[in-house]
Amino acid sequence: MIRAGIVGGTGYTGVELLRLLATHGDVEVSLITSRAEAGQRVDELFPSLRGHCDLMFEAPDDARLAACDLVFFATPNAVAMHSVGDLLAKGVRVIDLSADFRLQDRAVWEQWYGTEHAAPELIGEAVYGLPEVNRDRIRDARLVANPGCYATAIQLGFLPLVEAGVVDSSHLVADGKSGASGGGRQARTPMLLGESGESFKTYAASGHRHGPEIEQGLRLMNPDAPVQVTFVPHLVPMVRGIEATLYARLTDSARDLQALYEARFRDEPFVDVMPWGSHPETRSVRGGNTCRMALHQQPGQAAVIVSSVIDNLVKGASGQAIQNMNLMFGLDERAGLRAPALLP
Amino acid sequence: MIRAGIVGGTGYTGVELLRLLATHGDVEVSLITSRAEAGQRVDELFPSLRGHCDLMFEAPDDARLAACDLVFFATPNAVAMHSVGDLLAKGVRVIDLSADFRLQDRAVWEQWYGTEHAAPELIGEAVYGLPEVNRDRIRDARLVANPGCYATAIQLGFLPLVEAGVVDSSHLVADGKSGASGGGRQARTPMLLGESGESFKTYAASGHRHGPEIEQGLRLMNPDAPVQVTFVPHLVPMVRGIEATLYARLTDSARDLQALYEARFRDEPFVDVMPWGSHPETRSVRGGNTCRMALHQQPGQAAVIVSSVIDNLVKGASGQAIQNMNLMFGLDERAGLRAPALLP
Amino acid sequence: MIRAGIVGGTGYTGVELLRLLATHGDVEVSLITSRAEAGQRVDELFPSLRGHCDLMFEAPDDARLAACDLVFFATPNAVAMHSVGDLLAKGVRVIDLSADFRLQDRAVWEQWYGTEHAAPELIGEAVYGLPEVNRDRIRDARLVANPGCYATAIQLGFLPLVEAGVVDSSHLVADGKSGASGGGRQARTPMLLGESGESFKTYAASGHRHGPEIEQGLRLMNPDAPVQVTFVPHLVPMVRGIEATLYARLTDSARDLQALYEARFRDEPFVDVMPWGSHPETRSVRGGNTCRMALHQQPGQAAVIVSSVIDNLVKGASGQAIQNMNLMFGLDERAGLRAPALLP
Amino acid sequence: MIRAGIVGGTGYTGVELLRLLATHGDVEVSLITSRAEAGQRVDELFPSLRGHCDLMFEAPDDARLAACDLVFFATPNAVAMHSVGDLLAKGVRVIDLSADFRLQDRAVWEQWYGTEHAAPELIGEAVYGLPEVNRDRIRDARLVANPGCYATAIQLGFLPLVEAGVVDSSHLVADGKSGASGGGRQARTPMLLGESGESFKTYAASGHRHGPEIEQGLRLMNPDAPVQVTFVPHLVPMVRGIEATLYARLTDSARDLQALYEARFRDEPFVDVMPWGSHPETRSVRGGNTCRMALHQQPGQAAVIVSSVIDNLVKGASGQAIQNMNLMFGLDERAGLRAPALLP
Repeated sequence: MIRAGIVGGTGYTGVELLRLLATHGDVEVSLITSRAEAGQRVDELFPSLRGHCDLMFEAPDDARLAACDLVFFATPNAVAMHSVGDLLAKGVRVIDLSADFRLQDRAVWEQWYGTEHAAPELIGEAVYGLPEVNRDRIRDARLVANPGCYATAIQLGFLPLVEAGVVDSSHLVADGKSGASGGGRQARTPMLLGESGESFKTYAASGHRHGPEIEQGLRLMNPDAPVQVTFVPHLVPMVRGIEATLYARLTDSARDLQALYEARFRDEPFVDVMPWGSHPETRSVRGGNTCRMALHQQPGQAAVIVSSVIDNLVKGASGQAIQNMNLMFGLDERAGLRAPALLP
Repeated sequence: MIRAGIVGGTGYTGVELLRLLATHGDVEVSLITSRAEAGQRVDELFPSLRGHCDLMFEAPDDARLAACDLVFFATPNAVAMHSVGDLLAKGVRVIDLSADFRLQDRAVWEQWYGTEHAAPELIGEAVYGLPEVNRDRIRDARLVANPGCYATAIQLGFLPLVEAGVVDSSHLVADGKSGASGGGRQARTPMLLGESGESFKTYAASGHRHGPEIEQGLRLMNPDAPVQVTFVPHLVPMVRGIEATLYARLTDSARDLQALYEARFRDEPFVDVMPWGSHPETRSVRGGNTCRMALHQQPGQAAVIVSSVIDNLVKGASGQAIQNMNLMFGLDERAGLRAPALLP
Repeated sequence: MIRAGIVGGTGYTGVELLRLLATHGDVEVSLITSRAEAGQRVDELFPSLRGHCDLMFEAPDDARLAACDLVFFATPNAVAMHSVGDLLAKGVRVIDLSADFRLQDRAVWEQWYGTEHAAPELIGEAVYGLPEVNRDRIRDARLVANPGCYATAIQLGFLPLVEAGVVDSSHLVADGKSGASGGGRQARTPMLLGESGESFKTYAASGHRHGPEIEQGLRLMNPDAPVQVTFVPHLVPMVRGIEATLYARLTDSARDLQALYEARFRDEPFVDVMPWGSHPETRSVRGGNTCRMALHQQPGQAAVIVSSVIDNLVKGASGQAIQNMNLMFGLDERAGLRAPALLP
Repeated sequence: MIRAGIVGGTGYTGVELLRLLATHGDVEVSLITSRAEAGQRVDELFPSLRGHCDLMFEAPDDARLAACDLVFFATPNAVAMHSVGDLLAKGVRVIDLSADFRLQDRAVWEQWYGTEHAAPELIGEAVYGLPEVNRDRIRDARLVANPGCYATAIQLGFLPLVEAGVVDSSHLVADGKSGASGGGRQARTPMLLGESGESFKTYAASGHRHGPEIEQGLRLMNPDAPVQVTFVPHLVPMVRGIEATLYARLTDSARDLQALYEARFRDEPFVDVMPWGSHPETRSVRGGNTCRMALHQQPGQAAVIVSSVIDNLVKGASGQAIQNMNLMFGLDERAGLRAPALLP
């Protein structure tokens, strides 16, 4: 039985880890920390866990965390980097759901996250936790940087095209849309139901932190290709789900794209390529760890269109973290992640 | 041209006053105050007003307010009571959209609002601004206490039954449901789209501030009747709209209730009694000042059921305030309030 | 391994049975029928089941159904009653998710469902599948009538009060609210997102079919008590979830109601009584089989208020059907129903 | 007073015409037709119009329509083309809100709409009703083809770039998102709240009818530029609103794009260019006739991004039709369209 700790468990990725781990037979959550809520029962904050979780939030305690086999950081950005080093030194493996170790270029990270990196010496060791690209490295990793939600949907959607070098990767467009849970549980006026309900808008259209993460990932898929992605995120008046519509100009029009995608993801337990011309719905992955996608072309056009959907809290966060955990501990990669999505 | 001021204009009732007054030919908004946003253009905060409003928020200034004919207080509770007296003394008339002057019993007010009343000497003068009950007194009022949103929908729905004394008014049930804009623009975690979207719940089920306001109003409608209302509010995952389902036991089963309602509201410009057995939708009053209602009885039962809908920001707040203003200044009661609702 | 068939699998209760049974280790779905969709893969209609279900819809076939241990009817009302008799005669057990066998009084059934009952001889044998009331009878039943969604939330909410005889059961009020999936997958204009989105309304306020079902259930809980329920349903602009707010006048004010509820449901795996004064949210049971409830009283009032929430497709339909199946086949009552709800 | 008729008034564009015309002082709606609803009061179908509209739906009658000054066709596609010729011959002017006369190339129209065109002789005469491009021709038109909703938002968003020739117009991307009212009031399963609520998806990603309409419009803006647009629409779980995010590669990087947009739309009463880097929200135009847009560029990229929002039923349909009517009849272009949007 793996003893897992969760640092910063009062947000959506925290409760989602608890939900998924509640049915995972090989993991026991030993502790969950929150400075603000220390002493409160977890199921008071999240009544969905009544009967499933007897833990109380507790203040972070080094010794208690050091006794874990694995610690998930479900903290805001720029928190985990202060604690990861100590845990690794004590033999604890870490999966960081925040952005602290996602970018390999420290200067780029510091530019986008607006602060100095507190553990630059660990950046090189951190493995980017996208199993479809880095499965073997994840198995042996001490520190996994769990990808961002948009970054997951968009990288997986572009992956076969970029790897195969069949598109002009220097002019990629990624139009992303996310439900409100992507904005977290912090109280902010623009995220009120009264503000964001029954409305739709762009945000961060002049540049979003997942942009450099996506570009870094695509460059690693094909070191020969120049990569530039124009990524614009949007807020959808719903709770869960990300859809990304990807646009790329084909440079090799003879390639059977459907076959390319099916072959690339044939053995992937959590990527589903629908038949050509399908329209994936975010609800078809609600609560599940699948990234579902489909391809389109329009008559007379050289552009290929990919629509890629995930649940931002599962494949886009906590589910992918558990997938990474399964790999790190030699479990079946699908353990705890087998339930179908909740549709309708 | 009436010169109007708005104190505390950064919330939903403030922007709704500006929206409705933009097409009201007899009123000019001279100033709108906000300490927090002073110096910012109003249409930066509310882009829907671009091209309709050139004002900037300004810090409250006594002289500037005193130059108005009328001041609307669109402030949180327990703010207006500190300023109203001075304005009245300077000859400015006041419509308070907050709760400060709604309850005639100071002790009850202080119990429910948790603070000492700062202007108890004005409570007696304040006229409760429900035109369907108090039209004549409103015309002459210096200070109008604009009713609460739930209180409007529920009092109007019960009004003919209680006035006519045909129900057991000591056991009334009012099951109210509101969209999220009823909770205001303040950032609070439970009001996030991620928390309240795609979900439904009660709140304040052990007692809500509008309970005593409703009971006070019903008692005035029929001083002979003992009145007790069990009122439970609910949060609906939408932005605007209140529906209240009212349950009362008939004591006079021979009365033609439909005729009673139609007669009572025949001359009311903003109350619409639908045919017996109809199902009013909140969207049918979205953006409009109408309270729309319908009556039902179930086979073999002595209970009468009333479903009453309003737009919480219009008839439940800013629209009713303008209706009151129209009365106070001798204008057509419907001025500025004639546009049909936005359906769908 | 139980061989189960599903008749009429193209609606929401059908896909929900498949979702839940996909993780139930003791059941294999042998066939799923639909005249309209015969020959189509199930996962084409419901992409959430891609990778979880290889079945195709097939036309109903007596021999294929007769080879099952159990058949679920997920059909519209007035369909199952034509087929159940034959299946029972062949030794197949049946759980009917429609209303055909819910009412013990044939005349009442025919009045509310508007047609002649095709199998009146089976009405008496059918066991009403509310395990919290009928657990032992369900174990031995050949034919289980799975309760209605509102009827489940409302009966469980009133159960301890009515059983204990501490309220005036002749004047009960049940104000019910349901998400749109309660209306089924049939295309009807009023259920369009364009019609029902961002709006709220009553429906069937002059009488709903679950009214007699609820009253029948409450009468069986306490044969000495006269029972009359005024039940008004409402449509909430969300997909899943039912909340019912229940109002009853206490006749025994000395009783500790919280203790009464906790005692009554202590051993129930799928009823959760929250602390006094809590506000259950429908999202706290989304996708789960729990009925979660809480109690309230308002100052100076004799009324007790119960708020009861379920997922209309789980405890209100397919989850309760699986709970009943587990009882009928001697399995752990919780099998297949252990996953926590999906919050947010 | 202009006498207007509406053909096919049971859909969303019909009720929206009635809503807007109710406050338009210069127009009287003489009749509204519907074969299916003939004899029913309009305000029974649309209770929001109670007190604002005394008309009944009537069967189409040539003489009654011929007595109008203007007839709006709010019919499904391929209906108006059968009747327009006769009306024009009788001196009635026509605004067709459907697609029948939007495409100047008959063959393209027949390919995308799947039927033979019934009035090809009128195609050449029809004026495409986008006032920002065709204002003068609209004034004199007998027959105006009112633009599609997506086509309005996207053409206006691209207009300054294409006219000025500062982008590579052969590789434009338009990612469109629409609320559910864009799908009409016809009952279809995929448009149910239970299906489309709390979810997001593409549709018609392999080609949508507004694609050729958009390309035709852009070509007319700059006959020298080769135009190709990859347009993918999406369904947003809300009722009203369109947002289109437009991507174009700059060929002239020295141009001040903000100044270009502000200059081009300076005199347009219904186009609002927000400050550089703003994020227009669909709610900021809800119920109003404004197209609101903003520009973005991302660091180091040659792409310009435009976000353009409209209310699909107003500037995207009925509001634009009234704007066209105002032009055709020499009224103030803003008549009936002056109310601010409904926010929140």
